[in-house]
Amino acid sequence: MNVNIVTIGDEILIGQIIDTNSAWMGQQLNLVGAKVSAIHSVSDTKEGIIAALEIGLKQADVILLTGGLGPTKDDITKKTIAEYFGTTMVFHEPTWERIQGMFKSWGRSTTPAHKEQCFMPANAQILYNKMGTAPGMWFEIDGKIVVSMPGVPYEMKYLMEFKVIPKLVEYFPGKPIAHRTILTVGEGESRIAARLEAIENSLPDFVKLAYLPNLGNVRLRLSAIAENGEDIENMLNEKAAAIKAEIPELIYGYGIQTLEEAIGELLINRGLTLATAESCTGGLLAHKITKVPGCSAYYKGSVIAYAYETKNKQLGVKNETLEEYGAVSEETVKEMVVGVLKAIETDIGISISGIAGPGGGTPDKPVGTVWLAIGNKDHIETRKLQIGKDRLRNIQYTAIQGLNMIRQFVHKYYPATVTTLD
Amino acid sequence: MNVNIVTIGDEILIGQIIDTNSAWMGQQLNLVGAKVSAIHSVSDTKEGIIAALEIGLKQADVILLTGGLGPTKDDITKKTIAEYFGTTMVFHEPTWERIQGMFKSWGRSTTPAHKEQCFMPANAQILYNKMGTAPGMWFEIDGKIVVSMPGVPYEMKYLMEFKVIPKLVEYFPGKPIAHRTILTVGEGESRIAARLEAIENSLPDFVKLAYLPNLGNVRLRLSAIAENGEDIENMLNEKAAAIKAEIPELIYGYGIQTLEEAIGELLINRGLTLATAESCTGGLLAHKITKVPGCSAYYKGSVIAYAYETKNKQLGVKNETLEEYGAVSEETVKEMVVGVLKAIETDIGISISGIAGPGGGTPDKPVGTVWLAIGNKDHIETRKLQIGKDRLRNIQYTAIQGLNMIRQFVHKYYPATVTTLD
Repeated sequence: MNVNIVTIGDEILIGQIIDTNSAWMGQQLNLVGAKVSAIHSVSDTKEGIIAALEIGLKQADVILLTGGLGPTKDDITKKTIAEYFGTTMVFHEPTWERIQGMFKSWGRSTTPAHKEQCFMPANAQILYNKMGTAPGMWFEIDGKIVVSMPGVPYEMKYLMEFKVIPKLVEYFPGKPIAHRTILTVGEGESRIAARLEAIENSLPDFVKLAYLPNLGNVRLRLSAIAENGEDIENMLNEKAAAIKAEIPELIYGYGIQTLEEAIGELLINRGLTLATAESCTGGLLAHKITKVPGCSAYYKGSVIAYAYETKNKQLGVKNETLEEYGAVSEETVKEMVVGVLKAIETDIGISISGIAGPGGGTPDKPVGTVWLAIGNKDHIETRKLQIGKDRLRNIQYTAIQGLNMIRQFVHKYYPATVTTLD
Repeated sequence: MNVNIVTIGDEILIGQIIDTNSAWMGQQLNLVGAKVSAIHSVSDTKEGIIAALEIGLKQADVILLTGGLGPTKDDITKKTIAEYFGTTMVFHEPTWERIQGMFKSWGRSTTPAHKEQCFMPANAQILYNKMGTAPGMWFEIDGKIVVSMPGVPYEMKYLMEFKVIPKLVEYFPGKPIAHRTILTVGEGESRIAARLEAIENSLPDFVKLAYLPNLGNVRLRLSAIAENGEDIENMLNEKAAAIKAEIPELIYGYGIQTLEEAIGELLINRGLTLATAESCTGGLLAHKITKVPGCSAYYKGSVIAYAYETKNKQLGVKNETLEEYGAVSEETVKEMVVGVLKAIETDIGISISGIAGPGGGTPDKPVGTVWLAIGNKDHIETRKLQIGKDRLRNIQYTAIQGLNMIRQFVHKYYPATVTTLD
């Protein structure tokens, strides 16, 4: 199936926000073998939306619109679609009941705008949106599909994942397509590519290997389309196994697992508990770990010690250490690990101290200098990073390296007692 | 002038990269009063580029294409444009001399692909690209302008800033345009809209008000175009002041400031220090605060107390309190505030404890129940939230409400000694 994505909103056209919805949608559609032939961003006016519909109906089988739905006056997608397809607006009682229920559970009352929002084009199938008040709408017109979704990313993602993609796949059954995604951390794209060169050269024409790099990690995606009845599942299993044999130490998981989820599984599997002590990452490592449902089984807490006195008082870092070596030093992060293990009483502790920038750099320790330490009651290991000048990137990259150190430390000192697949 | 932006490249359509060029171009064009009526992302094929040209020539005065130029891309854009406009390709000697000079200065030799790259459509004006080998191209066709630029961000930005925008402004002297963005937190879109209804109805035709909601906050954007010499700056100032008078307590800033940056300014302005104690948000509040450069001037640290024993040992929450009222209770968050003020020794402390889910809910305290407390040595204020079922959304929404409580607490107990505009 051929898809046009349309994002509606002046804020995209004047560059006030960057359209990240389209990229996410493109990825998801790609996974089910749909081809995105164009992405159009248009203004939230009748003319803008109609132009996009006209182009889309000419270019594609499916038009996915996001944005321009919601309770305020500038939301006109719905009315424009109804007018364009010559249908009327009807009141949708289930949506009104659902909105009233949501507000009641919050102990708040609805406004007239919320009731107004429940009028829907008569020819729309309503897609229940668990994440917000505006439902999605599905239209079938002359064998083509038009879907309208809210532009709020988590609402759009919910609708795409649970409503739109399953319905599209049913509506346009395609050639068998399969993917394997191998998740790596610890090396960059080009170094991994060099190690996988022979495997890449061995791939048959119907299998493709894509490198999808993110900050600090690289996903490897093997894709196959059975153009002529090839056994794509077996072929992908074989090639994924070859990749695993080549770069075993870089692989933390498969599919859509996050690094923090993989670490959670690992800690649960080994029956270990974890504490963190953060300075420059300021809570991001803890946030990543605690995003994972059920993390309280292994994660006990953190001391975020932004100030010298907090490092000293809460983590027992000696004032002499801070004075002699500085807060960003191997000695300080080692003492932070000892301190956090004592304060929070866990099996493993990890600590981070660095200069995220833009200020605070010196010739000896420029912005982007970071020390990490990880340890248990018997061992402490340390690592120094020299990253870049961008504050947020330094924080994010360091948190990922911290997660990878946890993974490596557990594999080194707590090997699995039975053979597992991780 | 009315502009269409076209970004060329399959990597955008499959979501492998996010198109940030368009947003930057939109901002720059907006600043000179050009109106971007649509952004199209198309595949790097002849069909994709021709479809975009056809749409653009119908919709706009100016088409700005990026991507699909350069030695590895087979120069598909250039050839397609030449073919579409029925012109031939001619060798451009100055570009060839420039490329040879660049390579000579690097001590490297050119490849045949570089010479090939110097063939240009005969009707193109060549725009010198100081940042790379592929120049920009400017075409004038029946009073419309088509410009092709490389997709590499810094090359495109150089060409836009120094070549394209100056030429466009000369070609299409435009109408003045202006914006005011008002940043709010604490109420949803429809409630704000209800309070601003009279102001919205009072807006003249040349002024528009847009609601741009995010999780937990709403940006209000006033835009005006001087169609007939109207004094748009004064009109926007007047309407922005009217909005400020109507919803003063919801406004945390203007323009592109984040809530955490606004709080940083406020704390610096009042000479206050802050500590945090987080349970269910697991470090996200601390991360938001520490994303802001210079936050060490007011932020000292946090205790993330995920476990009962950490709440007890690090924050001094009484075991009886935890047993009698539970970890998610007004009593517990109050004791957490007292504890974090003592542990980290700051002027203000804020605490959060809740059930982020998906597990841990009870009939009395379902998933999404969160208690927050904020205090100093004299006062403690608390707040209960009842959010939803999505773990990450609960965490994110709570962190934003925590930031808003800091803002409100400072305004209430530390009023500015001199009149300021915040």
